[in-house]
Parts: sequence; structure tokens; C-alpha cells
Amino acid sequence: MTFASDLAHAVHGGDRRALSKAITLVESSKADDQEPARELLALLTPVARASFRIGVTGVPGAGKSTLIDTLGGRAIADGRRVAVLAVDPSSRESGGSLLGDKTRMTHLSSEASAFIRPSPTLGVLGGTAGRTREVITLCEAAGYDLIFVETVGVGQSEERVASMVDCVLLVLLAGAGDELSSMKRGVLESADLIAFNKADGERARGVEADAVSLRASLGISRASRAPDVLVLSALEGRGIDVLWGALLKEQAEAERRGTLQLRRARQRQAWFEAALQEALQGVFATSPELTALRAAAAQDVESGVLSAPEAAQRLVTTLLARRSD
Amino acid sequence: MTFASDLAHAVHGGDRRALSKAITLVESSKADDQEPARELLALLTPVARASFRIGVTGVPGAGKSTLIDTLGGRAIADGRRVAVLAVDPSSRESGGSLLGDKTRMTHLSSEASAFIRPSPTLGVLGGTAGRTREVITLCEAAGYDLIFVETVGVGQSEERVASMVDCVLLVLLAGAGDELSSMKRGVLESADLIAFNKADGERARGVEADAVSLRASLGISRASRAPDVLVLSALEGRGIDVLWGALLKEQAEAERRGTLQLRRARQRQAWFEAALQEALQGVFATSPELTALRAAAAQDVESGVLSAPEAAQRLVTTLLARRSD
Repeated sequence: MTFASDLAHAVHGGDRRALSKAITLVESSKADDQEPARELLALLTPVARASFRIGVTGVPGAGKSTLIDTLGGRAIADGRRVAVLAVDPSSRESGGSLLGDKTRMTHLSSEASAFIRPSPTLGVLGGTAGRTREVITLCEAAGYDLIFVETVGVGQSEERVASMVDCVLLVLLAGAGDELSSMKRGVLESADLIAFNKADGERARGVEADAVSLRASLGISRASRAPDVLVLSALEGRGIDVLWGALLKEQAEAERRGTLQLRRARQRQAWFEAALQEALQGVFATSPELTALRAAAAQDVESGVLSAPEAAQRLVTTLLARRSD
Repeated sequence: MTFASDLAHAVHGGDRRALSKAITLVESSKADDQEPARELLALLTPVARASFRIGVTGVPGAGKSTLIDTLGGRAIADGRRVAVLAVDPSSRESGGSLLGDKTRMTHLSSEASAFIRPSPTLGVLGGTAGRTREVITLCEAAGYDLIFVETVGVGQSEERVASMVDCVLLVLLAGAGDELSSMKRGVLESADLIAFNKADGERARGVEADAVSLRASLGISRASRAPDVLVLSALEGRGIDVLWGALLKEQAEAERRGTLQLRRARQRQAWFEAALQEALQGVFATSPELTALRAAAAQDVESGVLSAPEAAQRLVTTLLARRSD
């Protein structure tokens, strides 16, 4: 038994501490961790459970954490096992607002069927969306069948998350007229569901009006199916049943039409492309000689004596010919 | 003399038809064209002239083409040689508005010192920003020392272009209050110069007011140097001298502080990274056996039996061990 196979066993058995440890291993950029991390994923990928993955987006302060907390509780009541992952590539700018996730999700953090990964550095290490795909797979292998991926900020991180999930829930703040007009149409239109949150108490009526006008505007601009626009108060628990019902309908529809399976296949394809890229680039880190060759080629391009395609091609040719000497 | 070296000679000699042919070759995705394209670039990169590259961004209809036409004419009067490239990854959506560039730039298209590449497919082939970097190099080798890269749309294409140029000029429409509020702050703040265009005739006064309020808002929000905000009418030629002066100042400043050289080095580094990626991926297209190995690995990941990092690592190991058999 290796370290990785012990850990894989514990993760698959539902041990939450083991899952945390596994995620840390998979997210690590240390050279020594790469081999066991790969072994762990190789063992756990075939036993990963089919899950429904929900991306939750929206500006800071929209109440995403509270919403996930309440919605996750509702799902657990239905027998689901819930994992919450946070992707925050902009954490340096937003002041690391996700750091407090675990404490803010008071409901879920006391549930045995929930796993929360407050991962403020996720996505920072490595400069990309990090290892979100890998972390999702680990959670699925640990038996979680409803995965929330929470993302802060707009743009690239959201696009990347959208490519990894089954459904994107955009959380808007009540009375967010300004926010709406400054939001790129694409963000609104790429959502599968839009929820106006914080329709608390007396504010509810005004929020309903916002929802009506957004529905009208989306209905006009979008040729294909417009996203449903819901109004809710995560704080008071209003509208949560309707939202949960809408998500279950999304999942059922996707399964019935086979789009869930198709999407999963496409996502795995993208995962493979990214992993292959990384593995190919990683070759140059395997020996000082190769590292030096790569640096020399880069230098030739930087100084302008060699074109990039030429330098790259020569480097690859050298790499492939190397073993045959 | 090979085909590529003949072509390189003609391009370097300033033959515009040869330059067009060279660009087509470099943009080609045909397998047979890759080798001569690389040879061409290898020959021309060392003789590429130092240039100043200006990215021109803004929504369709802002008058970018007319502005480039007028501004380019002004630059030619100063002895510069001007190339205009269009990058339009969203051409399918915007209806290929760039198709008519050459005819809309009536001034420049009659100039011996100007080269216009109306390239509606640039950036579509290959799914990325295409070969813009390579095309810029060809233009520099042909002696053009002022390169305009015009881009339509927002987001990714603009970010990519910004990484290839020395200065980003954002063209805004006069009376664009709505446009401004829906524009992401990042787009405004990442510009080096902002020009309100179409301040024609009686509209000039209103546009001045827009500029004043934008200057104030940028001055407040941005800690570092805020972009200059100019008002002009490309149609009437008003403000063009001021804009040209501002661009020359940008260039002189960047040269004086050494940022131009630093930036060029960083750009070449990025070019090398991209080219290396492509060359590595390209290895699998060099033989039916490798293509089949790659497809089999992808299939294992898609069906869920193998994790992506594991499949990728095995494939790379096989690739490297192959020649030593």
C-alpha cells in the first residue's frame, strides 16, 4: 500500500479529513507532490460518483454564501450530499472575502453530509483556475453528488468555472439597477438561472419589479431559451423551495435529453487537453539539461535572433531526438 | 533559393504583394504551409524593424477605421510607414464589419507608404488570436514602423491584442453615456489613451463635457497615471494633430525609460511560450501512430476510466520513450 492508495481508500470511504488532505495534495505545486497526486486521481477517477455541479456567480455581497448555505441545507433534507468549493482568482484584490466562508455557512458547516472547502488560494497557485476540475473529482469520489462551485468576480474565472459545471446560477442583489446596467449582457445570458437575492421583508415588492423587467429584457434579446429569473430571500428562507425545484428540473431535463452525459464527456476532453499541455511543458523541468535548453531557446527569441516558431520547433526536435542518441 | 527565401527577400525589399502572400502563408492552417511559414519567419525575424504598435479598440461604429485612416495619413506626412491589421475574432457575430476596411480607409489605401490587411478571418482560424504576432513581425520586416492593430468587440480579443502592442487607444463615440456606464471599468483603465471620436460640428461642445466628466472619474478611481482623454473629429480632421503628438510622446517616453525594450522582451517571451505549446501539441500530428495514441488517451479520459493527468503523463512518457526502442 502506498501513501496515495491509503489516502484514496479513506477518501472513497467518506473520511472528510482525508478529503481535505487529498485536496491539499492535488492543489500543491511542490515537485514531490505531483507523483502521489496523480496516483491518487488515477485511483479515484473511476469511482467518482455522478454528480450535479452548480456554479454560483455574482458580485461580492450578493449573498452567495448565505444562499448556498440555505440551499445546501434544503438539498441535504432531500438526501443529497453537498460539497462547496470556492474559486477566487481575484482574492488578492477583493481582500480574500472567501476566507470566512466556512464560518458564514453556519448551517452547512454543522451537517455531516456537507463538505466545505474554504480555499482562498485556489486558483492563485499556478495562475490558472488551479485544480478545480481535480478537486471536483475528489469530492465526487468521496460520495458528494451535489457540488457548488462559488466564484467571485467576473470574466475569465467565471468562464472557466462555467466550463466545469452543469448549471450556472447568477445571484443578483435586490435593487441592483446600477449593477445590472454595468453587467455585461453575456454574463446575464450565459446564466441558466438568475436569482435576485435579499428580497428581505419590505424590499420584496421592489425586487419583484426588478425581476419582471429583467425577464422582459431577457425574453426580447435572447433567441433561445431565456434563463428563469427568481426572487428570493436566503436569509428568510423565502423562494428556496422554488429554486431547489428549478435546479432539480434542470438536472432531470439534462439527464433526459442526454446533455448531462455529453457535457461531461466534453468537460473531460477539456480536462485532458489541459493536462496534456501541462505534462508536455513539465518535461522541461525533469532535468537540468532540458531546463537549460528551454531557457536558451527562450533567450534566442527574446533577443530577436530567432523567431518563436523556429526556436520552439528546434527545441521540440532536440527533445524528441535526445533519447535516440 | 527556396520558395520561402525568395518570398522573404521580396518582403524585406518592400514588395506589398509579397507581404500579402507572406501573411496568407503564415496564417494558413494547411499542413504543407507550416514548414515554409516557419522558414519565412526565421529569415525575417532578425531583420524586423523596430516599430511602434498601437492597438485601437472600441465598439463597432465608434469610427475606428476613419480615425486610423486620418491618423495614418498624418503619420505618413511625418515620414512613417504605416501598416493596419484587423483582428476580429467575433466577426461571425458582428457580421464581418471589417470586410470593408480597405474601401473605408480611402486615404491610406492610396498611399504608397501604407499597407492595409483586411483580414476578416484573422483570429478565427485556430480559435485564438490567430497569428497576429507573426503578421506584425512580417510587417516590421517589410519596413513598416507604425503598426495599427484594430480590434472589434470587448474582452478576450482585446486583452490578447493589448499584450502584443505598445499602446492601447480606446475610441469612444460622442454622447456615449450609456456605452460608458455599460463598459467594464477595466477596459477604460487599461487604455493608454482615450479618444472621443465624432465630435463633429455642433456636437463638439457636448462631447467636451463628456470628456471632462470622464477625466474626473478616471482621475479619482485610478491611483497610477490616468489615461489622457482627447476629443476629436476624424471626419473633420480636428484633434488629429494633438492625438498624433500624444502618441509620439508615448513612444518617446517608453523609449527613454526603456519600457519599450522591456515590453518587447516580454512579448517575445509570451510568443515563445505560445509557439512552444503549439510545437509540442503538433508532435501528435506528425504520424498516424502518434495521432492514434493521443486519441486513445483522450478516449480513456472521456469514458471516465482514466484521470486526465494520468492519461496525459502516460502519453508523454510513451512519446519520449518511443525513439529509444
